[in-house]
Amino acid sequence: MTQPLIRRLCVIGVGLIGGSLARALKQAGEVGEVVGSGRNEDNLQAAVRLGVVDRYDIDATRAVVDADVVMLAVPLGAMATVLRDIAPYLSPDAVLTDAGSAKGSVVADVKRVYGVIPPNFVPGHPIAGTERSGVEASFATLFQHRRVILTPLAETAADAHRLIRRMWELTGAEVVDMGVRHHDAVLAATSHLPHMLAYTLVDTLARLDDRAEIFRYAAGGFRDFTRIASSDPRMWHDICVANREQLLEMIALFSADLSRLAEAIRNDDREAILAIFQRAKRARDNLYLD
Amino acid sequence: MTQPLIRRLCVIGVGLIGGSLARALKQAGEVGEVVGSGRNEDNLQAAVRLGVVDRYDIDATRAVVDADVVMLAVPLGAMATVLRDIAPYLSPDAVLTDAGSAKGSVVADVKRVYGVIPPNFVPGHPIAGTERSGVEASFATLFQHRRVILTPLAETAADAHRLIRRMWELTGAEVVDMGVRHHDAVLAATSHLPHMLAYTLVDTLARLDDRAEIFRYAAGGFRDFTRIASSDPRMWHDICVANREQLLEMIALFSADLSRLAEAIRNDDREAILAIFQRAKRARDNLYLD
Repeated sequence: MTQPLIRRLCVIGVGLIGGSLARALKQAGEVGEVVGSGRNEDNLQAAVRLGVVDRYDIDATRAVVDADVVMLAVPLGAMATVLRDIAPYLSPDAVLTDAGSAKGSVVADVKRVYGVIPPNFVPGHPIAGTERSGVEASFATLFQHRRVILTPLAETAADAHRLIRRMWELTGAEVVDMGVRHHDAVLAATSHLPHMLAYTLVDTLARLDDRAEIFRYAAGGFRDFTRIASSDPRMWHDICVANREQLLEMIALFSADLSRLAEAIRNDDREAILAIFQRAKRARDNLYLD
Repeated sequence: MTQPLIRRLCVIGVGLIGGSLARALKQAGEVGEVVGSGRNEDNLQAAVRLGVVDRYDIDATRAVVDADVVMLAVPLGAMATVLRDIAPYLSPDAVLTDAGSAKGSVVADVKRVYGVIPPNFVPGHPIAGTERSGVEASFATLFQHRRVILTPLAETAADAHRLIRRMWELTGAEVVDMGVRHHDAVLAATSHLPHMLAYTLVDTLARLDDRAEIFRYAAGGFRDFTRIASSDPRMWHDICVANREQLLEMIALFSADLSRLAEAIRNDDREAILAIFQRAKRARDNLYLD
């Protein structure tokens, strides 16, 4: 029998992302043992019961011992603490990676803990997920045909980078490399801003007097739109804090454009209104094929 | 054989809505003859070929002759012209109804043309649709389990109201009555505002330097979000013009809330950020079951 790609994988935070990664690698036969860790012991017990991890240790300093790959799949706000805890216990050869939705903050956390960027650290972000969370929501095919962005740094060792790339490819994902700041700008635009709009829209409507009726009459577009407002508030709080500058920039751009549209509506500037909608439809239909 | 509910139905604007209504009534065996009219003769020819209408007349003044029910399924901006054209040619008993997404403007158009609200006028709005348009996109089951809002006026005759209610029920829709202004407020919140946000988001992102990349990395939530920006720009232009005041009010409420969220992010007010997201998730999960 051939060796699996990873002899021992430690997943800290066995939720939708961490759990789905473990499932996919097990299904591919490319991991010897999966050790889980995290703050919620019920969730870890469920992970064992579901066969997502082989065993768990609530204490991450013990869970990481002798692991070849350590995946940090915890909320962005928990990265610094976990990094500080586990740093002394990692094997010298262990490759450290993460699945955070913003990369600048994780890189800064790593730098603060280690003083430098360790060559075995490969920051990553799978562009996948649903509005559900927890190991019960995980499934082996979550990453199939989805993109995983890696943001290796100048200090990152080629071997470590190659290993993490291969790991994600085995889940069926398409892996691409990107700079840290560029990643955070692209995600601010395509994911973080839309989530802010969805949360705000639901919050605005939920405070109207006739909110019950409003939600009752909500149809097609609105339903799609608000589904993402069902996502985990704590996770999105962390993303706002982690990607503050780039997110604020996008909110400002959007707000200015929305004000311009409102002005056109107020002034009955019909050409301007139509031009905005036509430009958007053209962009959407051209750039973004369903 | 029993009589169909409607002996002759004239549909002006045989697109997604008008076409789907005709298909549903034909399928139910509740319409004797369907006569189509509209500005686009290719579309009308397709409607005959697809069996959606039995015949058509590009001239609406001829198409409405001897019809029991006349359905105006044209863009809001075309209502006034069509109403003016057909008014002298309608049978005295003909029931006039429409499918416009805003009701105040249609009622005002009718009042301008007739001087009063004719008792046989029943304003309506099926809350259904896709981002596609034209008769080719129509299908008989479009209205099944969807809501149709009627906004009868003090002047509306009970018989006319009953007929249009029954007509929509035969398509599988749930029919509800609502006041004109209330309808326009609810729709401004649940449909018109979300469309403005989707169009603006796509327009904002499409003007960024790295737009091609941004659309490439767009995932789940964003995809749902922007689908509605693919809707017909002319139709949405008309809605903005028709429901200006209530839409502007909703945009203002939303913008203030988005500014408050941006302020909280800027000030690193983590409790405020989390509170907004939690409130929205709770509202969404409670008020709006999938």
